[in-house]
Amino acid sequence: MRGKTIGNLRIGDFAEHAKTISEADVYLYAGLTGDFNPAHVNAQEAARGMFKERIAHGMLGAGLISAVLGTQLPGPGSIYLSQNLKFLAPVKFGDTITARAEVVERNPERNRVTLKTTCVNQDGIAVIDGEAVIMPPK
Amino acid sequence: MRGKTIGNLRIGDFAEHAKTISEADVYLYAGLTGDFNPAHVNAQEAARGMFKERIAHGMLGAGLISAVLGTQLPGPGSIYLSQNLKFLAPVKFGDTITARAEVVERNPERNRVTLKTTCVNQDGIAVIDGEAVIMPPK
Amino acid sequence: MRGKTIGNLRIGDFAEHAKTISEADVYLYAGLTGDFNPAHVNAQEAARGMFKERIAHGMLGAGLISAVLGTQLPGPGSIYLSQNLKFLAPVKFGDTITARAEVVERNPERNRVTLKTTCVNQDGIAVIDGEAVIMPPK
Amino acid sequence: MRGKTIGNLRIGDFAEHAKTISEADVYLYAGLTGDFNPAHVNAQEAARGMFKERIAHGMLGAGLISAVLGTQLPGPGSIYLSQNLKFLAPVKFGDTITARAEVVERNPERNRVTLKTTCVNQDGIAVIDGEAVIMPPK
Repeated sequence: MRGKTIGNLRIGDFAEHAKTISEADVYLYAGLTGDFNPAHVNAQEAARGMFKERIAHGMLGAGLISAVLGTQLPGPGSIYLSQNLKFLAPVKFGDTITARAEVVERNPERNRVTLKTTCVNQDGIAVIDGEAVIMPPK
Repeated sequence: MRGKTIGNLRIGDFAEHAKTISEADVYLYAGLTGDFNPAHVNAQEAARGMFKERIAHGMLGAGLISAVLGTQLPGPGSIYLSQNLKFLAPVKFGDTITARAEVVERNPERNRVTLKTTCVNQDGIAVIDGEAVIMPPK
Repeated sequence: MRGKTIGNLRIGDFAEHAKTISEADVYLYAGLTGDFNPAHVNAQEAARGMFKERIAHGMLGAGLISAVLGTQLPGPGSIYLSQNLKFLAPVKFGDTITARAEVVERNPERNRVTLKTTCVNQDGIAVIDGEAVIMPPK
Repeated sequence: MRGKTIGNLRIGDFAEHAKTISEADVYLYAGLTGDFNPAHVNAQEAARGMFKERIAHGMLGAGLISAVLGTQLPGPGSIYLSQNLKFLAPVKFGDTITARAEVVERNPERNRVTLKTTCVNQDGIAVIDGEAVIMPPK
C-alpha cells in the first residue's frame, strides 16, 4: 500500500489508466461538482454549440491523471503539489481516454518528481497535456 | 444559457460556488476516476498517513473551479483552454469549499480571459490556488 | 417487513427479480468496488478481448440474487450464510437479467434453507448458476 | 493491460485491495441491485434486528474480491469461472475491509488457477471466506 520512493523512480518510468467515458460518468461528475454547463448535460443546447453534441468536462480527464499518480506512479503516500493542464480537444461520450504519467525530472534533495501527464483518446489524439509535481512517499 | 462575452467581462469581476465535501462525494469521485488511493478511501491506512484521516482528492476541488467557470464566469459557451493548480492544503471530509474565479487579465484581440482561481475552506485557508485561461463565448 | 420463517417455506417455492443491466449500472459497480478491469470499462480493450465488447461484472448478477433472497425469499430478517456461484456466460450491456431463487432443501432443526439460485438473460441463457444457504427469520 | 498468465503465477502469490465501507457505498449498492433489505437501508428496522444497526450487503464485500481478481491477480484478461463465499460476520458502516486473493492451486493443463479469497475487517476478523476458480489470460 506504499508507492515508489524517489530512489525507486527513474526518468522515463510511466504508468497508464484508461476508461471509456460514459454519459453516466459525465452526469455523475456534473452532480458532484455542480458543473451543469449545458455543454455537458443539455443535448439541445450542445447541438447548437461549438462541438455539436454534449462533451465531457475537461476536468474529468484530469481525474484520470490523478488516478495514475495516486494509485500507480508514484502511488499511495504521494503528496500532490501542482498540476498544469492544457485542454487540447474535446472528450466525447464514448471516447476511451488513456491517462499517462511519465517521470521527466527528479530532485532527490527536495524529494520532488515532475511527471509529464497526458490524456489521449482512442484515435491517438491528445485531449489533455500538462505536468504534475509530486512529493513521493518517503 | 449564454455566458458573458469578453466585452462584458471586467477585471475584478468574480463569481463563487461552494459545497460541503461529503464522504459520499469523495467515494463517488474515486468511483468515477478509479482513484482508489487509500488516502481517500481507506480510513485505516489514512490514519497512519500524513493527514491522519481520509482526505478528498485535490482534483475534486478543481471540479468546483470548473463549475464556476462553466456555469457563471464567463459561463456557458466558454472554451476552457488551460488550468494551473497548486494544491496547498488538504480538504477534509465535511470541509466547506468555496471556489472563486476572478478576472485578472483580458485580451480582446485573441478573445482570451485569464482568471485567478482559488478554493478556500470554511476557516479561510486556501486549499487550491491557480489560474485559468478561457475563451469566452462570442 | 419480516420474511418467511422456515415453517412457511416449502420446497419448490421461488421468487424472481429482474433488471436490464445498463452501462451506468456497470460503471457505478466499478466505482463502488474498484473493479476497473478493462473488460468492463474500456471499450477499446474489450473489443480486442474474448467477448468483443464490454461486459458486466459477474458479481453484479450475484447482487440480483442477493436482492431476491434478502427482500423476497426468505426476505428480511434472513441471515445469509453462504453462496456458491458459477459464471456460465457473459452479461452484456442491455441484457435483462432475471435472478431466481428456489427452495430445494429445508432443515427445520438447524433453521437452514438451501435455495437454487440462477440468473438467466432475455434469451433464456443461464449466466449464473449456484446455491445459497440461508437462516430464515425466526 | 494484461494480467498474469498461468506460467507467471506461483502458489502463495497474493494481492489485496482495501476500502472503508461507507453508508454511501451501501446505499448505491442497494440502488444498483434492488436489494433494499431493511437490514441495509432502514435504520429503525435494523435497530430492532440481529445486528442492532444497518450493515453492508455481504455481496458488496464479494465485489472487492472480484476487484482483486480482475485488476491484480491474475488481472485483466482473466475469465471468472466460479466463486464460493461464506459470510462469517457482518460488515458495519465504517469498517475497513481488505479483500485478499492467494493462489492455492495451479492446473497448467486446463489453464485453471484456484485462489483462496478472504475479506478481513480492521480488527482482523474474517467477514468472508471462500475460493475462486479463474482461467488466467493466455
